[in-house]
Amino acid sequence: MRVHDLAEPYPFVTTDDDAMDAARMLAEQSLPALLVLGADGQPHAIVPGSQLIRQLLPAYVAEDPALACVVGERHDGELAERLAGLTVAEWAPRRLYPPPVVGPDARPMEVAALMARTHSPLVAVIERDGDQVMLLGTVTAARLMQHFIAAAGL
Amino acid sequence: MRVHDLAEPYPFVTTDDDAMDAARMLAEQSLPALLVLGADGQPHAIVPGSQLIRQLLPAYVAEDPALACVVGERHDGELAERLAGLTVAEWAPRRLYPPPVVGPDARPMEVAALMARTHSPLVAVIERDGDQVMLLGTVTAARLMQHFIAAAGL
Repeated sequence: MRVHDLAEPYPFVTTDDDAMDAARMLAEQSLPALLVLGADGQPHAIVPGSQLIRQLLPAYVAEDPALACVVGERHDGELAERLAGLTVAEWAPRRLYPPPVVGPDARPMEVAALMARTHSPLVAVIERDGDQVMLLGTVTAARLMQHFIAAAGL
Repeated sequence: MRVHDLAEPYPFVTTDDDAMDAARMLAEQSLPALLVLGADGQPHAIVPGSQLIRQLLPAYVAEDPALACVVGERHDGELAERLAGLTVAEWAPRRLYPPPVVGPDARPMEVAALMARTHSPLVAVIERDGDQVMLLGTVTAARLMQHFIAAAGL
């Protein structure tokens, strides 16, 4: 069994997309993370939902949650407004959220170890053909768990 | 708006449940994390899927993913077998994954800051009544995003 057989489709956005549209997609589809591809189709970032939320918060609140209590409620609306005019790349910088990626022939255990180490909700499965990179799909923790349970014949 | 109005039901297991049953629930329902309650109904742990996977791996693989390549494929079945006879509490120790919890009157921004700081896919909303603790529901990053977008009137 190779990871290629486990990979599943996952909704994605590209770096040039509107950040607000990306936020809406995450919200409406209840995604655990945002998968961001570059214009060349190469995975650019995988951002867990909790860290997308972090990117909305004023820096002083992200650093000290206690300060959230003293911010007026009307500010809730201002958080999403901060996304207006931003691209996905500006909202979710790659250097903070480098995407864990594997090739199609990676072993499930290798993918599991990468996921565990990066604390990422998903790992991207890609295929390289010269300079071209194609996304084959992604693997979640739930998908890996399915595989390990099935492999045990339980 | 208080977090009570945002909280949604989420499947949970208890500390004494069979770890294998909990793993199956995560796999079958594609959950991003396992919500574990104590026998008293109090949140005991919230474990992201990636870290449940980590708990399945041999320690030497978790510490060095490159070693996953040299482990034979037949070992995939042994990973889930490690859960046999374990309770959820033994599989997912509380000290490693203390659950982020808030009261029903917490503000959405406070919940967002807690989620961002703990990197947790969900935050538990609880109500205390003397010594009793009742789980009211949970809030995901997608749910918070919905709220902030709605609050902005976008």
